[in-house]
Amino acid sequence: MLPEFRNLLDAKLRISGYIHKTPVMTSTAINNLAGSEIYFKCENFQRMGAFKMRGALNAILMLNDEERRAGVATHSSGNFAQALALSAKLTGSRATVIMPRTSPEVKKNAVRGYGADIIECEPTLAAREETTNEFIKKTGASFLHPFNDFNVIYGQGTAAMEFLDEVSGLELIFAPVGGGGLISGTALAVHYMKPSAKVYGVEPLGADDAYWSLKKGEIQPSVNPVTIADGLLTALGDRTFSIMKELVTEIIRVDEKEIIEAMRLLWERMKIVVEPSGAVALAALLKEKEKFRGKKSGIILSGGNVDLGRLPF
Amino acid sequence: MLPEFRNLLDAKLRISGYIHKTPVMTSTAINNLAGSEIYFKCENFQRMGAFKMRGALNAILMLNDEERRAGVATHSSGNFAQALALSAKLTGSRATVIMPRTSPEVKKNAVRGYGADIIECEPTLAAREETTNEFIKKTGASFLHPFNDFNVIYGQGTAAMEFLDEVSGLELIFAPVGGGGLISGTALAVHYMKPSAKVYGVEPLGADDAYWSLKKGEIQPSVNPVTIADGLLTALGDRTFSIMKELVTEIIRVDEKEIIEAMRLLWERMKIVVEPSGAVALAALLKEKEKFRGKKSGIILSGGNVDLGRLPF
Repeated sequence: MLPEFRNLLDAKLRISGYIHKTPVMTSTAINNLAGSEIYFKCENFQRMGAFKMRGALNAILMLNDEERRAGVATHSSGNFAQALALSAKLTGSRATVIMPRTSPEVKKNAVRGYGADIIECEPTLAAREETTNEFIKKTGASFLHPFNDFNVIYGQGTAAMEFLDEVSGLELIFAPVGGGGLISGTALAVHYMKPSAKVYGVEPLGADDAYWSLKKGEIQPSVNPVTIADGLLTALGDRTFSIMKELVTEIIRVDEKEIIEAMRLLWERMKIVVEPSGAVALAALLKEKEKFRGKKSGIILSGGNVDLGRLPF
Repeated sequence: MLPEFRNLLDAKLRISGYIHKTPVMTSTAINNLAGSEIYFKCENFQRMGAFKMRGALNAILMLNDEERRAGVATHSSGNFAQALALSAKLTGSRATVIMPRTSPEVKKNAVRGYGADIIECEPTLAAREETTNEFIKKTGASFLHPFNDFNVIYGQGTAAMEFLDEVSGLELIFAPVGGGGLISGTALAVHYMKPSAKVYGVEPLGADDAYWSLKKGEIQPSVNPVTIADGLLTALGDRTFSIMKELVTEIIRVDEKEIIEAMRLLWERMKIVVEPSGAVALAALLKEKEKFRGKKSGIILSGGNVDLGRLPF
């Protein structure tokens, strides 16, 4: 059974005072290249640089005062960690992030920069879960999962809600797939607001667990994923998968070269900084442009947090 | 005697159907860093990637049909060449650009990409002028100077006009100075629309001819300029200088490190691609932030055309 629309509407209202209503941009050059009409929802301009702010804020605002005072925790080394850190700061809570000790210093510093605590653990799944559980037990903090949490999913869906409000007549919506939080929230929003539109998830070929999960009808692990799109490494969760199974038309896969080319196109032609994970959706549309020719498409550019010292071009 | 406001108002109306009304952006992080309130006019999102479109279009639209049919020519290897190329294409004219044969292929290709012809010359001032004069004489094309032309200056001033319309209460306006087209157009707009605001021109220390020109009261040549801000190498012209002398409060100079840091800040915190020449104005505000503390400032980000394969970070 799909979650009700009310959940998304409430989430949108709940977080509206904290987030940016991000702009929608277009590019004549990219439209000409694709042979179709493309609208970009620029979540790279979201606070903290990615759509993850939406889900983190919604989840934290669903806690009661006492829970918020006791703090929140997550395990993530990516944008969700920063999003939870900033959300906690904005809402009078305190975030603790469990991160592998091998995470790049730049990511640790970003999380600390938003005022969160970091607990380092060995870089294994077992160590991460044990460290997290211990911390939760000791402190009474609420654990918030980066994607497999309905409140997070509803929050992520608000990007598509704004998108559909702003651009009428979208026929196709593209979003990247990591753990599935963005795509499942997007699919819910589209289902209730524009049911005729198709929702495409996009994955790197080097981390195509969602493709296989939908194909086989059960969640496949993400085994040794390798891709520059480092926000898309994780496997799906049961909650994101349950929504995707029902509402996602297809998962399109793109290779590394296609991702980097799409990223470069966004930087060069639109003059915006988009992270590799944010560029995959455009890569997919361009890869299959014959299939989408003449359509009106919406692409969610998920984020813009990229290490400028380590660009692929 | 200063040109009348009517010229700017006419220019704004004349080019309005051809250009983008570019967005104004802000960044909490950069405001905190500067200790003041900063608004950015994003001409990096202008068609062709820079404010130069405005001046080129206004100048070309001031020609009569016959003149436009005979074509236009300029010498530039930078954004004005591309701007004139695209403007000619949009207005039923044809542009020819005289460029040193030593210009990077990427710049030649950009100009050709907008449909203009290129005539290569030896990389000397004499060769450039001779080649240009010969071409004009032979074809009857109209020569349009990249900055020392009042119609170009009025066009460039329309960016500040939009800016002042959109953001009320600006006390300071910062813009980069190359040949002076942008700063003199900006200063005119401010003079007529918000005379209480101060206008600051910004130059790289390695190309500070405008600083010395204003100090000495006459145009100084730009001798062996060296800076990453390659849009700011040229000396002033008599028309831009005559306006700057009257209306520019001060020229602030910034070093290469300050330019690169400001550029990186814009990319990292605002997620936008800005060229070095576009970042100098923020560099100046940050360099003298004590002086500008608590003020409401407007910065014109002049363009975003940068070779991603040759970034300084």
